[in-house]
Amino acid sequence: MSDVKRVYAFREGDTSMKFVLGGKGANLAEMTRLGLPVPPGFTITCQTCVEYYGAGKRFPDGLEEEISRHRKDLEEQMGKRLGDAKDPLLVSVRSGAAFSMPGMMDTILNLGLNDTSVDGLVEQTGNSRFVWDSYRRFIQMFSKVVLDAEGDLFENALTAMKQARGAKSDTDLTAEDLKELVAQFKDIVSDHVSADDFPELVENGKVVFPQDVEVQLREAIEAVFRSWMNDRAVLYRKMHKIADDLGTAVNVQTMVFGNKGDTSATGVAFTRNPADGTKEFYGDFLTNAQGEDVVAGIRNTEPILDLKTVGGLEKAGEQLEGVFVTLENHYRDMCDIEFTIEQGKLWMLQTRIGKRTARAALKIAVDMVDEGLITREEALLRIDPEQLDQLLHPQFDSTAEYDVLAKGLNASPGAAVGEVVFSSEDAVSEAEKGRKVILVRWETNPDDLAGMVAAQGILTSHGGKTSHAAVVARGMGKPCVCGAEALRIDVEAKTAHVGGLELHEGDIISIDGTSGIVVQGSVDLVPPSVSGEFDTILSWADEARTMGVRANADTPEDAKLGREFGAAGIGLCRTEHMFLGDRKDIVQSMILAEDEPTRDEALANLLRVQTEDFLGILEAMDGLPVTSRLLDPPLHEFLDDPRSLDIEIVRMEMSGGDPAAISAKRKLLHRIDAMAEHNPMLGLRGCRLGIVYPEIYAMQVRAITAAACELKKRGKNPMPEIMIPLVSVVAELEILRAETEEAIAKVIDSTGVEIDIPIGTMIELPRAAVTADEIGAVADFFSFGTNDLTQTTFGFSRDDIESKFLPRYLERKVLPRNPFETIDSGVAELVRIGCEKGRQANPNIKLGVCGEHGGDPESVKVFFGMGLNYVSCSPYRVPLARLAAAQASLAGKAEASDNR
Amino acid sequence: MSDVKRVYAFREGDTSMKFVLGGKGANLAEMTRLGLPVPPGFTITCQTCVEYYGAGKRFPDGLEEEISRHRKDLEEQMGKRLGDAKDPLLVSVRSGAAFSMPGMMDTILNLGLNDTSVDGLVEQTGNSRFVWDSYRRFIQMFSKVVLDAEGDLFENALTAMKQARGAKSDTDLTAEDLKELVAQFKDIVSDHVSADDFPELVENGKVVFPQDVEVQLREAIEAVFRSWMNDRAVLYRKMHKIADDLGTAVNVQTMVFGNKGDTSATGVAFTRNPADGTKEFYGDFLTNAQGEDVVAGIRNTEPILDLKTVGGLEKAGEQLEGVFVTLENHYRDMCDIEFTIEQGKLWMLQTRIGKRTARAALKIAVDMVDEGLITREEALLRIDPEQLDQLLHPQFDSTAEYDVLAKGLNASPGAAVGEVVFSSEDAVSEAEKGRKVILVRWETNPDDLAGMVAAQGILTSHGGKTSHAAVVARGMGKPCVCGAEALRIDVEAKTAHVGGLELHEGDIISIDGTSGIVVQGSVDLVPPSVSGEFDTILSWADEARTMGVRANADTPEDAKLGREFGAAGIGLCRTEHMFLGDRKDIVQSMILAEDEPTRDEALANLLRVQTEDFLGILEAMDGLPVTSRLLDPPLHEFLDDPRSLDIEIVRMEMSGGDPAAISAKRKLLHRIDAMAEHNPMLGLRGCRLGIVYPEIYAMQVRAITAAACELKKRGKNPMPEIMIPLVSVVAELEILRAETEEAIAKVIDSTGVEIDIPIGTMIELPRAAVTADEIGAVADFFSFGTNDLTQTTFGFSRDDIESKFLPRYLERKVLPRNPFETIDSGVAELVRIGCEKGRQANPNIKLGVCGEHGGDPESVKVFFGMGLNYVSCSPYRVPLARLAAAQASLAGKAEASDNR
Repeated sequence: MSDVKRVYAFREGDTSMKFVLGGKGANLAEMTRLGLPVPPGFTITCQTCVEYYGAGKRFPDGLEEEISRHRKDLEEQMGKRLGDAKDPLLVSVRSGAAFSMPGMMDTILNLGLNDTSVDGLVEQTGNSRFVWDSYRRFIQMFSKVVLDAEGDLFENALTAMKQARGAKSDTDLTAEDLKELVAQFKDIVSDHVSADDFPELVENGKVVFPQDVEVQLREAIEAVFRSWMNDRAVLYRKMHKIADDLGTAVNVQTMVFGNKGDTSATGVAFTRNPADGTKEFYGDFLTNAQGEDVVAGIRNTEPILDLKTVGGLEKAGEQLEGVFVTLENHYRDMCDIEFTIEQGKLWMLQTRIGKRTARAALKIAVDMVDEGLITREEALLRIDPEQLDQLLHPQFDSTAEYDVLAKGLNASPGAAVGEVVFSSEDAVSEAEKGRKVILVRWETNPDDLAGMVAAQGILTSHGGKTSHAAVVARGMGKPCVCGAEALRIDVEAKTAHVGGLELHEGDIISIDGTSGIVVQGSVDLVPPSVSGEFDTILSWADEARTMGVRANADTPEDAKLGREFGAAGIGLCRTEHMFLGDRKDIVQSMILAEDEPTRDEALANLLRVQTEDFLGILEAMDGLPVTSRLLDPPLHEFLDDPRSLDIEIVRMEMSGGDPAAISAKRKLLHRIDAMAEHNPMLGLRGCRLGIVYPEIYAMQVRAITAAACELKKRGKNPMPEIMIPLVSVVAELEILRAETEEAIAKVIDSTGVEIDIPIGTMIELPRAAVTADEIGAVADFFSFGTNDLTQTTFGFSRDDIESKFLPRYLERKVLPRNPFETIDSGVAELVRIGCEKGRQANPNIKLGVCGEHGGDPESVKVFFGMGLNYVSCSPYRVPLARLAAAQASLAGKAEASDNR
Repeated sequence: MSDVKRVYAFREGDTSMKFVLGGKGANLAEMTRLGLPVPPGFTITCQTCVEYYGAGKRFPDGLEEEISRHRKDLEEQMGKRLGDAKDPLLVSVRSGAAFSMPGMMDTILNLGLNDTSVDGLVEQTGNSRFVWDSYRRFIQMFSKVVLDAEGDLFENALTAMKQARGAKSDTDLTAEDLKELVAQFKDIVSDHVSADDFPELVENGKVVFPQDVEVQLREAIEAVFRSWMNDRAVLYRKMHKIADDLGTAVNVQTMVFGNKGDTSATGVAFTRNPADGTKEFYGDFLTNAQGEDVVAGIRNTEPILDLKTVGGLEKAGEQLEGVFVTLENHYRDMCDIEFTIEQGKLWMLQTRIGKRTARAALKIAVDMVDEGLITREEALLRIDPEQLDQLLHPQFDSTAEYDVLAKGLNASPGAAVGEVVFSSEDAVSEAEKGRKVILVRWETNPDDLAGMVAAQGILTSHGGKTSHAAVVARGMGKPCVCGAEALRIDVEAKTAHVGGLELHEGDIISIDGTSGIVVQGSVDLVPPSVSGEFDTILSWADEARTMGVRANADTPEDAKLGREFGAAGIGLCRTEHMFLGDRKDIVQSMILAEDEPTRDEALANLLRVQTEDFLGILEAMDGLPVTSRLLDPPLHEFLDDPRSLDIEIVRMEMSGGDPAAISAKRKLLHRIDAMAEHNPMLGLRGCRLGIVYPEIYAMQVRAITAAACELKKRGKNPMPEIMIPLVSVVAELEILRAETEEAIAKVIDSTGVEIDIPIGTMIELPRAAVTADEIGAVADFFSFGTNDLTQTTFGFSRDDIESKFLPRYLERKVLPRNPFETIDSGVAELVRIGCEKGRQANPNIKLGVCGEHGGDPESVKVFFGMGLNYVSCSPYRVPLARLAAAQASLAGKAEASDNR
């Protein structure tokens, strides 16, 4: 027998044991310690779940005995026994991982009821209807969760019974009706559950619903363990970057009942408003209901503030508000609470740090600093930078005119426009085709997760602000309108009626999760104006951080946006974007020119337009550095596709086209074919173009310098920097630096304006990283191009792998996550080597990152650890990066003081 | 004035000063020290040439004075003055770099003659014809080399004079004729040399041949400096991997004359036979000639052994043989000598370590060990492994029957078959089209270098074994037949007559450089049987080396060949080669299968044929390890080209083809297109295939294991190893190792044969190298795939860059050499990191290299330095690698003892 402790009574744990007892278990233990009214119980550790899988889905030796001891302990404490024929104890069996995964895993309620104890409970409660309802709920839930029976079978039987009895709702059914349903449910189990899957429950060749409460408990615990690896839980963890090997704890807790009549209730609440952060008690309750009824949105709920006004619930309502204050002061954060009132007595079933929208997170953090509850540093560390993205979602244009089609709850902020779809599958398949869709559902459930990811926004006709759709959408930062009751949805027909109108699949609607408004057709969206707390937090972040944040911007508009979001310059201005659009013709004539004059003319045209481009960008970033990267992509990217051209020629030939035209096309095709490459990513691009076609780089350098000189003449302070891409060998940079300096000098000579233009390089090839000691000696700055560096370090073509095998790799956990989103450890090692060697060669070298990782908070922390001077990212992600950089500084400080 | 010594008299230097005085200068100094008869002179250092370029092609300050001092010193020593009207001193001005670059740079003879000194020399020698001939030679050479005049202008004037006088050869012209030629030559200079280029020589608007001997000397020295950077010298250095920044020395030496009548002669000789290594005096001489006449092959030479039998040359001939012995004993190696006999007196003009064929190198090395002259270690270190390649060149099949068309000198061994071309340009352009050509020339000159590189072999009608063609071809290891006098070549008409036969451009001929035979048509070639010395040297190499050498082989035939060449196993057996040829159909049906049965059938077929393949290879390598790499290339490589298919479909459509057939083709096209990749090199290939299509790898593992089990049953000792390609993340190897072990176990279970199969991986991606500490923990061996590692480390697609920009990169010295031939330092750094981290994780890990670098001697030395266990290369390069490995060990030993 092992001497590992696998089971903890609630009184044995505390909130610090999250990774042992799971979040729910640790917080139940903490509330027990705080003296709050928690129904007693015990928790089986997360590590036991891991052991269960490690042993090939078997209980480790000794676990059964340990559970048994705790069960007996609980029975003694409660003075009741599970399955007792006189006064039975009922328990819930719930999952609870270290990180909250709402609704992803399984729960069984009312465990301990069987054909014997049901009578005992009737005797005890004198409420036979309630008891038989509990028994039928238990059988239904147990069968679905543990025995994997089809849930619809039970729902159908329930509906049929209601119809037969002319009952409007469940509560209209009598004890006798429910007793009959129990019998039907047991038959469903025998008829539909596979005997092969549950041999231990078979009698006379059929599965029999277990009467032995120990079997019930054991099977329920195992089912919770199994639910850790169900598809939606695995997907959820992938989305939220939660490791699979943490396991879930299992909480076995004495049942309390919110459905014992009008002095019973159940509810979910937050100590503050999780949507906007207002300091108010927030949440919903239902009288005479079990918890699942609230979350499932089956009945419409009442606001929590009304609880203390309901007859028979006043005392519990007052007590609950006291608990809110106790919890918030204890946890020093907004808490999320589940409670039940059983015949007037309040019971706390769960608490945890509450999820919130970005807007709420900011407001709560700033308010709590003002209230003296937390420090500024704590406030900064509490906000998930990734979440700020929500605030930067578009909103309805305030000047737009539209008719409101329906109004629901403002469940998750931001606005979205898209085509209506009525199922998760349709959302996924339409999104894959590149369409923007709004997922419209009666209410979502965990099976809808993939569709919610694929959709632009979510609209439901039922459920409150704590319903599944609302909670999950807020977590994702997706716009969501909930409980738009005017909507009557027919999933089969793929239509929805609202007023006199019929919406069909594919119709365009707009939703505003900030106001709860639903509009038919497309409403113009505008970028959001961010709140005062947003600026407050970011100004605190700017004080706390040491690493700079720049924006990647190729146009004056993006440059302005980046500046508004607090960018301290442009870290990457891609000049090839200036080669597209209406300039593509000029670029093509330059590439395909057959004589010098044609080529020179094209270059002169490009010089003219590029100078204009840089005037705009440098002016928008006046006084801040602008790093322009010289031409990077292979030239054939600007040419026609040879295959289409080839087919066009064949068609011309087959249809007797003009021989001269055909011949000209064929000649063009030959030239394009001659430029084609097997692996363009690894071909004639980047600085290789500069070596082979020096005139192109010279033109670009002239344009940058000329624009800067012109602005200087106008009294501005342009700060251009020139970046040579794709260097692998120091000689490339030596040659191109000399040519760049020469081109700059020529412009300076001709304009008479003095300007200093630093020249640096991208480090985006492994060879550049490992020879950075050579390259650093001739570079004023390095900018790590982690996109290409990831491609070459892994040997992954981003264009190919994301469709071809990356999904499979993530699924099989070959990779913990997409290395193009968050910097990979191997790629980071090369960045580290590059920084170290670059500084060896040139202690004054400026080091930055301009790959997309520069806007990924987790990667920003890695880069901070290497001592980079700045990160550069898309304008919209600049605020995230500022906050992430501040958090990295604070974490670094904390570490330093730990080491002191 | 600088205090650097830039000029050395011959008596001031010695052979150790090669990098200061150049090879020629250092050896002239050494011979002077040895008391051999060397015409006095002085040497301007190589570093001065570098200074000259550094200063923008200007003499450094003080050089002119230093040269002047040495000139005066030389004049005093000789008792004559340059340009003296009575008894003038004449000098030669010759290049001489640290590494021999025969014929690549310029030489000026007879410097010091002018209109005044010419009379003095006539007075001194009483040989007016000789003197005027010397003067016209000087003007001709100086004008061509220094003044950049077109050489043909002078040759044409000479030919016209001969025709006018009815002279058959130069020697038939009289002193008066030559005097007239001198006047004509001076006019040619004035008429054709650009006044802009030589303003210092201009009088009355025209360039005048300089009469001031100091000007002559200065201009000549500068011309030699300039010749360091002429095109052919640059190309030669690129081919021979000689750095451009070494510079050339300039030797100014008193002229002696081999053309002063019948008791004068000049010759070139080797102390042993440089073609086969026989211990015999070897070489040619010409009486009454200057040295250039021998090398240029203008007259046919006499063998050196006959020298002492020629009247008036007996004494000098005897003395020369004594010098041979002195030099060989002094240098302890075969020497290459240039000498001149002036009126019976022997003068040594040059010596150096002689170039030799690989066959000769082996024989000389083994003989000198036998003679007690050198040690085995010295013998091993003296042979250039790269040169061994020559010996592995094909020869005429000894059983072939053919008629000999012509016979020439066996100037460079090996046989070749190809189409006749008559110019270097044609050789290059035809070779670029993929044709095999034989370059047929009257005699080659340095301008023919590119053509010689492009040709399979070289055939000349003139010139001896020390002619340009012979020396250069031997250096290249190309077959060469020289002096096939029966051949009458008409370059203009592009024909050659031999006997009654006319050869045209494009006709096939075969040449055997080992026997000197020329055959019309194609003769079957066979691999050479290597000499006894080859085996002797390699057996010494095997004793000296510690690093193993394996072969890359995909067929039983290659495996056998590798074994014959001494491979200790197969380091890389590429299994995809087994997917080609008649198996491509099966492979296609596997890839495109739309149902399981079709796919399974294709896999079963592949299993059957792959098992046969491995039976053959494992049997051929019985008792030696065979590392098989599982499928590596992207699957679409086995499919039809989508563009061709698309065009085929369009043609079918336009011509009203069968709609069903069109539709089937279009469906196929969609499937092929869906598999296409932008960058196949970085796409779904290598172990990624194993993760996505586990059934393919499982089939291959089964085939390998089944073949091994079968051989074991037959009493053999197969030693298979399985290699997983393209791992970037340890999880890939973990998963595929587990699946491989499972597949092996299944075969072992079903056959009952026990076999241990090590499982390892390629390290061919930068990420694998930097995370080798993780990967090493699950690998039995690493094989560094330096081809792909070079591609990803540089971001170079080999398929693209070699045609697109590598030539430009080599030319601009962005790269010192092709990194796919010799391992690059940055790539080597990643290999080093990989080795170090791999050993950290697994001290018993076996480390090898199986890229093409494994057969490159220089790379082999780098790999030895990292402590790799083995290299693997193509069977033909196994001997080179064995020798290179031995040299690396010996160099390592020498270093270790130096450090002691």
